[in-house]
Amino acid sequence: MRPPVFREGKNGVRIWRVESDHAEERPDQLAVEEPLEIRLVQGERRQTVAVTMRTPGADGELAVGFLFAEGVIDRPERVLRVAPCVDPDESANCSNIIEVELSADGPEPDLAPLERHFFATSACGVCGKAGIEKLQLRATGPLPPGPEISPEVIAALPARLREAQGIFDATGGLHASALFDAQGNLLAAREDVGRHNALDKLLGRAFLDGRVPLHDHLVMVSGRSSYEILQKCMVAGVPVVCAVSAPSSLAVEVAERFGMTLIGFLRGDRFNVYTGVERIALAEPALKEKRGRNRSLLPTV
Amino acid sequence: MRPPVFREGKNGVRIWRVESDHAEERPDQLAVEEPLEIRLVQGERRQTVAVTMRTPGADGELAVGFLFAEGVIDRPERVLRVAPCVDPDESANCSNIIEVELSADGPEPDLAPLERHFFATSACGVCGKAGIEKLQLRATGPLPPGPEISPEVIAALPARLREAQGIFDATGGLHASALFDAQGNLLAAREDVGRHNALDKLLGRAFLDGRVPLHDHLVMVSGRSSYEILQKCMVAGVPVVCAVSAPSSLAVEVAERFGMTLIGFLRGDRFNVYTGVERIALAEPALKEKRGRNRSLLPTV
Repeated sequence: MRPPVFREGKNGVRIWRVESDHAEERPDQLAVEEPLEIRLVQGERRQTVAVTMRTPGADGELAVGFLFAEGVIDRPERVLRVAPCVDPDESANCSNIIEVELSADGPEPDLAPLERHFFATSACGVCGKAGIEKLQLRATGPLPPGPEISPEVIAALPARLREAQGIFDATGGLHASALFDAQGNLLAAREDVGRHNALDKLLGRAFLDGRVPLHDHLVMVSGRSSYEILQKCMVAGVPVVCAVSAPSSLAVEVAERFGMTLIGFLRGDRFNVYTGVERIALAEPALKEKRGRNRSLLPTV
Repeated sequence: MRPPVFREGKNGVRIWRVESDHAEERPDQLAVEEPLEIRLVQGERRQTVAVTMRTPGADGELAVGFLFAEGVIDRPERVLRVAPCVDPDESANCSNIIEVELSADGPEPDLAPLERHFFATSACGVCGKAGIEKLQLRATGPLPPGPEISPEVIAALPARLREAQGIFDATGGLHASALFDAQGNLLAAREDVGRHNALDKLLGRAFLDGRVPLHDHLVMVSGRSSYEILQKCMVAGVPVVCAVSAPSSLAVEVAERFGMTLIGFLRGDRFNVYTGVERIALAEPALKEKRGRNRSLLPTV
């Protein structure tokens, strides 16, 4: 299989690997997450039919597979051309726009299902860095430098989430999100088949309770962290986001841009700090000297 | 935390738990997946702003959290009412429609970001069973009764997927989908931060190669199986779908409706068969007698 593009080599990221109260800096790789706009081309007409957050690579297959699954195309012969957009005036990143050109010898594709059944999301379109800049408009204000959290508090979160969850073990099919205070006390937890839904439920409750911005709080999610997870936490003013699994490249970028602390692979007393290590109260003198450096280690894209 | 609703008690499902070539029937619980339509109400105006596949429960929080994260509402006082729809003429399932009524004393909510940044998906709207029936129109034809697959072939799939994947271990952040023939030979594999994207890439390749319908093939996905995964495989004519983790309720429903074999929790030589057990070549005489019963065990909803 053709490997997706990774931020490695000169694009490598450096993280803090924390175990108990020991921390070491080391290189790491991230799964790349970027938006892809899928456009249908028929003669002179170009039409955006979908935007999805994806890992670059096999974009043509992705577009065709999507259109086939949605019933827009029904046989390979309809597909004349699959290629990244070539509009030289395109202000967006053309590598994130894929065009699928259909032959004229077939029924007009029925795009109605796509229009009816869209799934609203916070995908930033194909706007890359511009999209992240736009997020700034929705920030509740700059995040405070704190709170400072001890590694023990971080390490205790997964067990508290599981305890609150309860149902998870019965089906293994639910994601969970939980809200904690800076001392690691569980304030609320929500479950859903969708990661983003569990987080919407959690933050919706906090919003209705007048708790937003959540400047003194931590959010933990059971799965991976993506652009969408970080975007929602950023808008709610959450300074520290922890996940059981890996972050995507765009999750790290959003956390970096907005001064958030992003933790991943939180299991047992071990975790990785991708950004904002200055909020973690690590003991080592060597580390102390380096604190605050973590952010600047992330490459610009 | 309030537990989501599960198909338990009279709504319990029965599955086949297979270990090596031994199989036993037993009850199981599934994470419920159902569509939710989020409507914004202002005075007399009602507007659908999103449809999401979610686990029922805390729907009001989900709607409010979503609208807050998207920048549509900025303070709790704007929210006058959050409630399931009450239109008696509503043909759809009202428990799957949530209305958020906004006060008039604020800026007109900016829905443009939602319109621009929608994420096309195969969510069936709020149509429940009707939505699944509509899927029938996109089926490439009835699935053949076969192929018959030995448990050893099923058990070997995860290792073959991991082998092909390679990159996964480096980041832990990618989902994978793979296509196998009925003998378990790997034909193609694709990776992505999004499960549905990895599957679109895989099926898009097969579609372009003229291999669809994939009646003699197996698909394996690295994560959980949802409505969306099963819907895509159904349209491509894939009779056997295997996942490392749990299926959702709607995944099982689609598999059941279209005569697909759905396998979950495939780890080591153990796996669960949720539907279509007749395609698994199990040796025990007791089981032989029961073959074909699996489908009818799923409750109607």
